[in-house]
Amino acid sequence: MSRIITFLGHGCTTGTVAIAAAKWFAQQGKRVLLATQTLDPSVEMLLGTPLNTYPQVIADNLQVVQLQTTVLLEQVWDELKQLVASYLPTTFAEDLYPGELLILPGFDSVLAFNALRQYYMSGDYDVIIYDGEGNKETLRLLGIPNALDWYFSRSGKIFDSLDLSKIAASFGGPLASAILTANIDSQKLQQGRAQVRQWIDQGIAVVSDRNCLTAYLVTTDAPEAIAATRWLWGSAQQIKLNVSGIIAYNCQLNDQLQQTFTPLVVASIPALSNQNWDAIIQALPDFNSPVSVPQSLTIDLAQQQILVFLPGFNRKQVKLTQYGSEIVIDAGDQRRRISLPPELQGQPIKAGKFEEPYLIISL
Amino acid sequence: MSRIITFLGHGCTTGTVAIAAAKWFAQQGKRVLLATQTLDPSVEMLLGTPLNTYPQVIADNLQVVQLQTTVLLEQVWDELKQLVASYLPTTFAEDLYPGELLILPGFDSVLAFNALRQYYMSGDYDVIIYDGEGNKETLRLLGIPNALDWYFSRSGKIFDSLDLSKIAASFGGPLASAILTANIDSQKLQQGRAQVRQWIDQGIAVVSDRNCLTAYLVTTDAPEAIAATRWLWGSAQQIKLNVSGIIAYNCQLNDQLQQTFTPLVVASIPALSNQNWDAIIQALPDFNSPVSVPQSLTIDLAQQQILVFLPGFNRKQVKLTQYGSEIVIDAGDQRRRISLPPELQGQPIKAGKFEEPYLIISL
Repeated sequence: MSRIITFLGHGCTTGTVAIAAAKWFAQQGKRVLLATQTLDPSVEMLLGTPLNTYPQVIADNLQVVQLQTTVLLEQVWDELKQLVASYLPTTFAEDLYPGELLILPGFDSVLAFNALRQYYMSGDYDVIIYDGEGNKETLRLLGIPNALDWYFSRSGKIFDSLDLSKIAASFGGPLASAILTANIDSQKLQQGRAQVRQWIDQGIAVVSDRNCLTAYLVTTDAPEAIAATRWLWGSAQQIKLNVSGIIAYNCQLNDQLQQTFTPLVVASIPALSNQNWDAIIQALPDFNSPVSVPQSLTIDLAQQQILVFLPGFNRKQVKLTQYGSEIVIDAGDQRRRISLPPELQGQPIKAGKFEEPYLIISL
Repeated sequence: MSRIITFLGHGCTTGTVAIAAAKWFAQQGKRVLLATQTLDPSVEMLLGTPLNTYPQVIADNLQVVQLQTTVLLEQVWDELKQLVASYLPTTFAEDLYPGELLILPGFDSVLAFNALRQYYMSGDYDVIIYDGEGNKETLRLLGIPNALDWYFSRSGKIFDSLDLSKIAASFGGPLASAILTANIDSQKLQQGRAQVRQWIDQGIAVVSDRNCLTAYLVTTDAPEAIAATRWLWGSAQQIKLNVSGIIAYNCQLNDQLQQTFTPLVVASIPALSNQNWDAIIQALPDFNSPVSVPQSLTIDLAQQQILVFLPGFNRKQVKLTQYGSEIVIDAGDQRRRISLPPELQGQPIKAGKFEEPYLIISL
């Protein structure tokens, strides 16, 4: 089974750590793919080789690919044309070339997510190291299955009654078609919906299973970096992403750092100097060892309490709302939906108390 | 007239420079808004004050606002409801709450762009300092008007012939409605299209006018940072964003740095230490002085040549395609469309030669 590992951190160190981690696994004989969204020359310079938009062997067991949006868009284009062929006129394909499409915000993450999904499903790699932005945008990307899940469920109920042609006409076409790539699978809508449903379920399963996907935090010892990294830790909980450890870049281990991220284990690595990767690789944590971290969510039926682990926020930054049998938590600019178990449904929230790092909801 | 200034750079220094620039303008008596997309505590720690999702005075002439996507989504919700009220059933508004919507990739930039647009049009500020990601995503955000321009023009031609209801039904509803916020203005489609057309034209005018919007590069002296920053300079050309200077963070001025970014003027600033902002502010460039930089595009009708300024790329990274009377340039994972002037229309590209920093197209 493939594993995906990614790195979250404030600043410019996650790329270096991702490269080191890829080398770490390759040295252990794992088939590794380093998938980077960094298109500027910095990663090429760190690796000492030009990169391509297809996986390229750069060392034993180690392949690297640049996830470039313009190229990914062309790659999904043929797929898309087939999928929509039955209800788009033939002029569609003739009128529009993938090489013409301009890139809007969101394309990067949606297409990179799709590419990661395909590499993951291919079975060609034991480990995929995803070198993304390492910040909120990486959480948006990994949050796609959860977000789509909700839109998909709601869309059936609400949009049956709408005059869809007017809506679609208003916002114009190719934009819609680009979004279709992420959502349409079949010319037959029912089959298509079932397929999309399956993709979403697979995605949710992968994101929330530590053995399939996990993130490590990366920080320096600057107070702002530590606070920002802890905030990312909390934000990751909001999309059910498991965080397995923390890597301190170019700083001395100290009690404060250790306490800030308890119970995560802190590994301290040196800065990269003179391309001495071995010094970093030897200091990396053992990515294969099991980890013990707080559960993101604990439901205590007897006490009628829900305990949500949310490190890095203050009281003002956590918002709690109830919609019927669902609770919505806003924090870290992420929105998380929690479905109440049957035993607690129909009960209003009596109290929500935030005692960092826990939000305690009493029903 | 308002000005928007933003910073592009590899690494974690653009936020610090943005804060210093905001203080610089405030000290000159300008009404300044610092609009930051950094939601983790790092900017609050640098400013020494908690921030809000509405503009908040933190010093004389200086307001700060955090652009938080979940909040911006709720703010546009009422606007959206009014706009679509005429062709959505009333149950729509009852069935769906803005506080329920999950965030997909792209929402951050689209909603932040819309917020910046509103602050810009309000006339409340002389200078808006936009503290975004400072990387490719910032260029995606500022590239929205150009991208929409093309989608908008094309959508008329292509989608008239499509069965739109099937398409819209396929990808589900609230996703569409979220996108609508960026595109619909009026219940009457013709009026709506005219209004959107106007927004797009205004946006294009603002982005390409140095007096309305400009970017400064920020780099350290690490070779990877310098190369990445130069790459961002080239990528900015692709969305017609004017770059007016470069700020070297915590490094000695040297000839190599100066040459790499010629003819931009390099200003060297110290690292922030003990909250000594004055040391940085005094070293900042004069943001009010006129700058002289190469034109992004020069068309030589006599020679039948087009000269495109594209620093930071190598030959392999620049792709040239012709579609009828348009030339498309792919570089920096940005796609740029150039309409040939009437005198050159109907002529095929004879040669495209890349001699960094210039792409020379001969017709």
